[in-house]
Amino acid sequence: MPSCVWLLALSLAALTGNTIGERTERNCSLTPPYLPSTAVNTTLQLQALREQMLHRNISAYIIPGTDAHLSEYIAPRDARVAFMSGFTGSAGTAVVTQTKATLWTDSRYWVQAERQMDCNWELEKDGRGDHILITSTPLHWVLHYNKHSHCSLFLIDSIYTVQSSNRSLKSIPLNLVDQVWKERPPIPPDNLTHLPKRSWQMKVEHIRNQIMDNPYEPTALLLSALDETAWLFNLRGNDIPYNPFFYSYTLLTMDEIWLFVHMDRVTDELKKYLNSSCTGSLCVQLKGYDTVRDHLKEYVAQPGIKVWIGTEYTNYALYELITPEDKLLTSSYSPVLTTKAVKDETEQRILRDAHVCDLHTDILRLYTSTYSRGPSFETISASGPNAALAHYSPTAETSRRLTVDEMYLVDSGGQYLDGTTDITRTVHWGTPTPMQREAFTRVLMGNIEISRTIFPSGTRGANMEMLGRRALWEVGLNYGHGTGHGVGNYFGVHEWPVGFQSNNIPFRSGMFTSIEPGYYKENDFGIRIEDVAVIVPVHTKYGNNYLTFDTVSLVPYDRKLIDTSLLSSQQLQWLNTYYETIRRLMGPELDKQGLHEEKDWMLRNTEPFMKSGSSASVCTSSLTLLALAIALFHNIL
Amino acid sequence: MPSCVWLLALSLAALTGNTIGERTERNCSLTPPYLPSTAVNTTLQLQALREQMLHRNISAYIIPGTDAHLSEYIAPRDARVAFMSGFTGSAGTAVVTQTKATLWTDSRYWVQAERQMDCNWELEKDGRGDHILITSTPLHWVLHYNKHSHCSLFLIDSIYTVQSSNRSLKSIPLNLVDQVWKERPPIPPDNLTHLPKRSWQMKVEHIRNQIMDNPYEPTALLLSALDETAWLFNLRGNDIPYNPFFYSYTLLTMDEIWLFVHMDRVTDELKKYLNSSCTGSLCVQLKGYDTVRDHLKEYVAQPGIKVWIGTEYTNYALYELITPEDKLLTSSYSPVLTTKAVKDETEQRILRDAHVCDLHTDILRLYTSTYSRGPSFETISASGPNAALAHYSPTAETSRRLTVDEMYLVDSGGQYLDGTTDITRTVHWGTPTPMQREAFTRVLMGNIEISRTIFPSGTRGANMEMLGRRALWEVGLNYGHGTGHGVGNYFGVHEWPVGFQSNNIPFRSGMFTSIEPGYYKENDFGIRIEDVAVIVPVHTKYGNNYLTFDTVSLVPYDRKLIDTSLLSSQQLQWLNTYYETIRRLMGPELDKQGLHEEKDWMLRNTEPFMKSGSSASVCTSSLTLLALAIALFHNIL
Repeated sequence: MPSCVWLLALSLAALTGNTIGERTERNCSLTPPYLPSTAVNTTLQLQALREQMLHRNISAYIIPGTDAHLSEYIAPRDARVAFMSGFTGSAGTAVVTQTKATLWTDSRYWVQAERQMDCNWELEKDGRGDHILITSTPLHWVLHYNKHSHCSLFLIDSIYTVQSSNRSLKSIPLNLVDQVWKERPPIPPDNLTHLPKRSWQMKVEHIRNQIMDNPYEPTALLLSALDETAWLFNLRGNDIPYNPFFYSYTLLTMDEIWLFVHMDRVTDELKKYLNSSCTGSLCVQLKGYDTVRDHLKEYVAQPGIKVWIGTEYTNYALYELITPEDKLLTSSYSPVLTTKAVKDETEQRILRDAHVCDLHTDILRLYTSTYSRGPSFETISASGPNAALAHYSPTAETSRRLTVDEMYLVDSGGQYLDGTTDITRTVHWGTPTPMQREAFTRVLMGNIEISRTIFPSGTRGANMEMLGRRALWEVGLNYGHGTGHGVGNYFGVHEWPVGFQSNNIPFRSGMFTSIEPGYYKENDFGIRIEDVAVIVPVHTKYGNNYLTFDTVSLVPYDRKLIDTSLLSSQQLQWLNTYYETIRRLMGPELDKQGLHEEKDWMLRNTEPFMKSGSSASVCTSSLTLLALAIALFHNIL
Repeated sequence: MPSCVWLLALSLAALTGNTIGERTERNCSLTPPYLPSTAVNTTLQLQALREQMLHRNISAYIIPGTDAHLSEYIAPRDARVAFMSGFTGSAGTAVVTQTKATLWTDSRYWVQAERQMDCNWELEKDGRGDHILITSTPLHWVLHYNKHSHCSLFLIDSIYTVQSSNRSLKSIPLNLVDQVWKERPPIPPDNLTHLPKRSWQMKVEHIRNQIMDNPYEPTALLLSALDETAWLFNLRGNDIPYNPFFYSYTLLTMDEIWLFVHMDRVTDELKKYLNSSCTGSLCVQLKGYDTVRDHLKEYVAQPGIKVWIGTEYTNYALYELITPEDKLLTSSYSPVLTTKAVKDETEQRILRDAHVCDLHTDILRLYTSTYSRGPSFETISASGPNAALAHYSPTAETSRRLTVDEMYLVDSGGQYLDGTTDITRTVHWGTPTPMQREAFTRVLMGNIEISRTIFPSGTRGANMEMLGRRALWEVGLNYGHGTGHGVGNYFGVHEWPVGFQSNNIPFRSGMFTSIEPGYYKENDFGIRIEDVAVIVPVHTKYGNNYLTFDTVSLVPYDRKLIDTSLLSSQQLQWLNTYYETIRRLMGPELDKQGLHEEKDWMLRNTEPFMKSGSSASVCTSSLTLLALAIALFHNIL
C-alpha cells in the first residue's frame, strides 16, 4: 500500500540530526563571540586574500555572488562568496578590505547569513529594489570607503555586472579569490549534447534580422548569458547544477558565428551538427572559452563596428573592452532572450504535459522516469522555523525532527526532456493557529488575485505583482522575495527576463511564469504557495487583445489552512474552478492507471468550497503524504 | 437665487458656436484632401525652416514639445511644435526633413492632432511607455532615416532631454525654429516675488548636505527644472501660464550660489532678500539667464570638479558641455525635487484647507477670492464627443450646443496663495445609457481601489496604478493617460516626481497626489474622476510603517451614473465613509454661512448607498449646477 513508502520517508527525514534547543544564530557582541555549529571559520582564506591585495596594492576588493555570465544558479567552482564568507545563499556580494569584510544579501537570507558567517564578517541588509530605495550597495560602500581612506587604488572583481558598475572603476582579468582557493572544484568533463529541435540555423537567421532592424546599426551581437548560447544552438550541458547549461559565449556577426566553449567537450558529431569545419555565415567557428577577451578586443579594434550587448548578463571585464562608446550598443536584454521568452504552440503543449506528468509521476512514485532528468533545483523542504528561511535546504546541522504540530513547506521541481516544473505547497501536520490560517489564506488570496486578473497584452509583471501582496499588506504582512519568474523548457527553472520583477519584459501570450507569494515569520514558520501559469488570450465584453493566466500546476492546497470567510466571492469561484480543472485532467488519468486510492484522495481535496466561515474538514494526512511524495520524488533524502 | 447665475452660464456656453454636422478630422487620402476648419496651414513655416536646414546642411531636425527646462507646461514663446505643425496638445515631438514632417503624440491627443494638422504632416502614434514597448520614437525615426538617406549630417534641437538622446547626436545652441518664427511672443516683463516661507538659506544648507553625502563626490549641483530654483529660494514668477514659475537655472557649489535669471525683473528688495551683494557661501550671485552655457563651460574646465544633474530635467545642450564623463554625475532627479516631494505639517494643513476653500468658494461663487490666484491650469470643460479628447478645451470652432442627453466632463483647479487644487467630475444631463453607467462605475471603482489600498512605505505608484484600471480591464476597457501626479503648494499642478508613472519616486507619508482614472469612447463621450489625496500612515493588525491615501477633494460623484451592483462591499463602504467626511467637513461650514440650499444639495448628494442593484435616485440638476459652478468659477467662458 503506497502510503507505507511515504510514512517511511517521513521517519527517515525525521531521523537525520536533531539540534532543537541550540541557538542557531551567531552573536558577535559576546566575548568570546557565540558561533553556532553552522558558522564557517574564514580566518585563513581572508588572510590569504588580503596578502594578495597588499601585494597588488588593492585597498578594496568586491566579490560578486555570481559567475562570469551573471548566472542566477552557479557551479560550485564559482561559489567564491561561499568560499570566502561561508554564506551559501543564492544572492550575496562581498567586499574585503585589509580591516573589514562585509556581505550584502537581501531579506530572504538575513537569518541564513547569521547562521553561516563567523565574526570576521559584517552583514549589510540589502533592501529590495522594488519597494525600498536601496541606500547601501557594495559599490557605494567601496566608493565611500575609498573616499575616506587615503589610498586611492581599488579594484572590482573582473566578473561584475555592467549595471552596478560605473566606468570609473578598475577591474582585473585575473580573479584574486581563485588565486587563494586551493581546492577549487574543476569543470565537469561531460560532453555537450544537442536536442532534436527546430534548426539552429533558422534561429540564427531570425536573430540576425533583429540585428539588421536595429536603427543603431550594430554589426555584431555578443551573447554572454549561458542560456542564450544553449538556446540558439539547441545545446545542453551540465556545468551548472539543476540547469542544463555550459560555459560559453557567442559572438554573432552578419557573416560569422564565433562560439567560445571548452573544446575538449565537443564531440565530432557535435562539430558536424554545428557545421564547424567551414567559415561561412552559417558555420559555427569554435574558439577556446578563455580566448573570448582576446577575440573581442581584436574585433572591436576594427573600424566601423558596433557590438550589441545585453547589460543584464554581460560582465564588466568584457564590457570595458568595448570602447570608445560609439562602438557599444546596449539594451537590458539581448534579442535572443526576448525571442526565447515567448513559447510556440508545441513548447506550450509540452510544458503543460510536463506538469500533469509531474504530479502524477509523484503519485505513481516513478522515482526514475525515463523522461525525468532529475530535479530542476535543490528541493526546499523546510519545517517549522526552518521554513522562515524562504530558501532553506536541509543540512545535517539544521534539519529538525518533524513534530505533528507545525507547518511544512516543500518547494520542488523536475527537469523533463522538454519541460521544467516548479511548485510549492505548504501544509500543516496538526492544528494551525488562527494566525497561521490567516497568513496562509492571505497568501492564497494573493496567488488567486494575480491568477484571475485580466490585463492588456504588454502589461508588465512588476505593475501587477502587488496583487500578490495586497491581502497581506491589508494586515501589515509582506514577503521579501519576488512574486514570480519565467520557466523554461528543459532549461533554467528561473528563465528571465519573464516574470514580475521591475526589470522583466512585458507579458505576452505564450509566456510561462511562476506565481509565488509567501509569508515568513522569523523563528516560527514559513508559507509559500507557488504555481506555474501560462499567459493566454481571454475574451472580454468590449475589448480585444486582453490576456489572463492559466494555471498549469495541478496540486490542491491544504484545506485546513484556508479560511474561506476571508475570500471574496470571485476568489472562491476561481478556487472552485481550479479544483474542477484538476479533477477533469487528473481523474481520467488516475482511473486509467487504476489508482483508486489516489483518486479518492484527489477528489476529497478538490471538493468545492461553500461561501461560509468554515471549510469542509478533510483528513489532510493524505495531503501531507502527497507533499512528502513530491519531496521524496525529487529526492531530498 | 443662485441657480439663475448658473443657468445663465449654461446658455452662454451653449451659444458660442455650433459646428454640429461638420466632419471634424482631416482626410489626406481624398483629392483634394479634406481639412476641417480647425486645421492650420503650415506650408510657409515649413518652407522657411527647410531653407534654414538646407543652408546649414541639416537633413533632419527634431523639435521637442517642451522648453529648455523640459517643463510640462510651456510658455507661448516655447510652443514651437504648435507654431510649426498647428498641433497644440501638451505632449508632442516633431521631426522635419526636406521631404517629410512628422509629429509624435500619445493616445490622449490622436484625435486632436487629426483636427489641427494639415496634410503637410504625418501623425506617428506614440504607445504608452508603461504598458507598451514603444517601437517608434522620434530618435529611432531620425536614426533610421539617417541610415537610409545618404546624407550623414543631422541635428537635434538644442533643447532636448538627456534621456531620449545619445552621445552620438549633434546639437546646436541656436534654435532654428526661433529663426523663422517672426511673431514669437516675448517674455512677460513682470517682476519676481518671494513668499514668506522658511528661509532659503536653510534649504540651501539641507541640499548641500545631500551633495556632501553623495559617495560619488559631486562638487556642484546644476538645477534646470523651473520649480527647483523657485522652490529653493521661495521665488515665484509667471513666465508659464497657470504655473508660478520663471526662466532660471541654479548652479550650487559648496561655497557659491549662481542664479541665472533675467536680471531686469529682479527688484532691489529681491536682491536684498537673496543677499546678492556678496559672494559668500550664502550669497546668491545673479547672472544673466543666457550666460548659463558659458559659465557652466568655465566651471567644468576646472580640475577636480564633478557636476551633479537630474537627467529628467536637464537639456541636452547643457548635458553635452559636461565632459569628460568623470566630471558628470547623473541621477533621474536632483535632491531638490526629492526633498520637495514630501510636504511638512504646515504645507499639508494648508493644502487640505485649500480644497475645502476650493469647493466652497465655488458654492459661494466668490469669483475673485482674495486668496485665489486664478486657475491652476486651463479648465477642461467638454461635453459629449468632445470629452473623448481627454484634454479637450473649448474653442470657437469645436464648442457644441449642450443637449440634455449627454455627458459633461469638467477638469478644473485653482491656485491659492499656499495651495494648488485639481479635480475632475463627470455628470450626465439626462439619462445615461447602460454602457455609460457601467463605464463610469468601473472608473469610480478604479479610483476607490487605489484610494483604499494599504501599502508599505516606499511602494512605487507605478506598482499600484493598475488598481485604477483593473475594473475596466475586466471588460476590455482602458485609458491612455497616467493615473495621477503630485500636486504642489501654489506651484505646479503637476508636481513631479510624485505620482503613478514608472519614473516617479516611491510613495512616502506626506506626499500629495491626484488619483484620476478615466475612460474615453472616441466620438461619443469621455469620463474622468479625479481626486487629490495625501499619503498618510495607517495602523495595521500585524505590521508597522504602512500607508494609505486620504482623499482631500470634497465633491460627491453623480449618483445616477453609479451602478452599485458592480461595487464590492469594501468599495461601497469606502464610498459611504467618504461621503460622511464631506458631510462632516462641509456641513458646519455651510451652516455658518447660512447656505441652506447648498447644504440641502450637499446632503442629498452624499446620502449613504445601500448594497442593492439600484442607487437612490436624486435630482442631479443640482449636481450639474455644481459642476457648472466649478467651471464658471475657473472661468471657462
